[in-house]
Amino acid sequence: MKMCEPASCQVDLVRGVMNNESGHYQKRLSDLEGLYADSAAFALSVSELGEQVVYEVTERRPEGTQGDMIFGVTRMSPGKIGNEYYLTRGHIHAQADRPEIYYGQSGRGIMLLESPEGETRTVEITPQSICYVPPYWIHRSVNVGDEDLIMVFAYPADSGQDYDIIARSGGMRKRIVDDGRGGWQAVDNQHYQPRSQQQVSHLFQPTL
Amino acid sequence: MKMCEPASCQVDLVRGVMNNESGHYQKRLSDLEGLYADSAAFALSVSELGEQVVYEVTERRPEGTQGDMIFGVTRMSPGKIGNEYYLTRGHIHAQADRPEIYYGQSGRGIMLLESPEGETRTVEITPQSICYVPPYWIHRSVNVGDEDLIMVFAYPADSGQDYDIIARSGGMRKRIVDDGRGGWQAVDNQHYQPRSQQQVSHLFQPTL
Repeated sequence: MKMCEPASCQVDLVRGVMNNESGHYQKRLSDLEGLYADSAAFALSVSELGEQVVYEVTERRPEGTQGDMIFGVTRMSPGKIGNEYYLTRGHIHAQADRPEIYYGQSGRGIMLLESPEGETRTVEITPQSICYVPPYWIHRSVNVGDEDLIMVFAYPADSGQDYDIIARSGGMRKRIVDDGRGGWQAVDNQHYQPRSQQQVSHLFQPTL
Repeated sequence: MKMCEPASCQVDLVRGVMNNESGHYQKRLSDLEGLYADSAAFALSVSELGEQVVYEVTERRPEGTQGDMIFGVTRMSPGKIGNEYYLTRGHIHAQADRPEIYYGQSGRGIMLLESPEGETRTVEITPQSICYVPPYWIHRSVNVGDEDLIMVFAYPADSGQDYDIIARSGGMRKRIVDDGRGGWQAVDNQHYQPRSQQQVSHLFQPTL
């Protein structure tokens, strides 16, 4: 049997990347059209900073997927669109029963989680805190600090990502905004449309 | 559907433990009979330090296992038995096609890996290095530094551990010993007995 070789990847806590990676992708502000509440503020920011990388992921994926794991590092820039903190697109796993762990390394963030039925949870991420995202939770990272938010992550290699689930319901139910006192608060997203019972049931169906 | 709640676990880099854990176990030197080459030195150390905790694990396991993940923190004390560095018992996953990742936090270690067919690999573990243990590798951690070796780990929840695989072959093929110049080297274990082709084939059989 052909064995995969062990590997060592060094995490760079300043640059927020990992070496010996198998993949690397970057998101620019201009890639995030439609995610923020204040579209005028978004358009203005894009015109000024549209080509700036706002988050990036370096990761290592194994050759196969079944039973294996993907891991890597994500780095998110600090910033706001209007009063809304910079966020990632967010996803649920295509095999929705797959979990993920995020381990805070630098900066201050929020993991915003939403159940298929629309319940919200927030988990603060700070250096050396591990956030466990259980199966079936839609999740998105938000940088609520004023420096890069850097996290190490790991999840099952056969998870897949469904990035459209959030767009299909008009965004997540809550938005993470500046509370005006140097902190954050979760406020209602006026455009949120709850998933139908049929959509919810579909998410809970086994995909394998 | 009953959803698991998200969780946050804080890693304590000084004590080498994690809070909000679901389990915690400790190994004392007296638990490690038969692992070291120099049994006279081992007996002497046990008589002096037998009840001292030499490594411990705090972990969080999910309620189910299929598709989920276990994560936690391991802390290993520094020390030697004769010229052989302190080690963990080591294991292969009971579902041998399951991987594991170890993320170095503090101290200096070696991940000693062995394929079913007896090939050896060593991966150095230092702060902020991630060691990827691919499917099918027997693995054991060794503390080659002079302070606690602390690592965060994660692996699939349905992996299981076969701790006897190493004992069945008279130990791992290599031992990690002091090289006399402040470093380490891998030397042959005189008691190692290679696995038979039948034993090797059995490890590569799917268990699910």
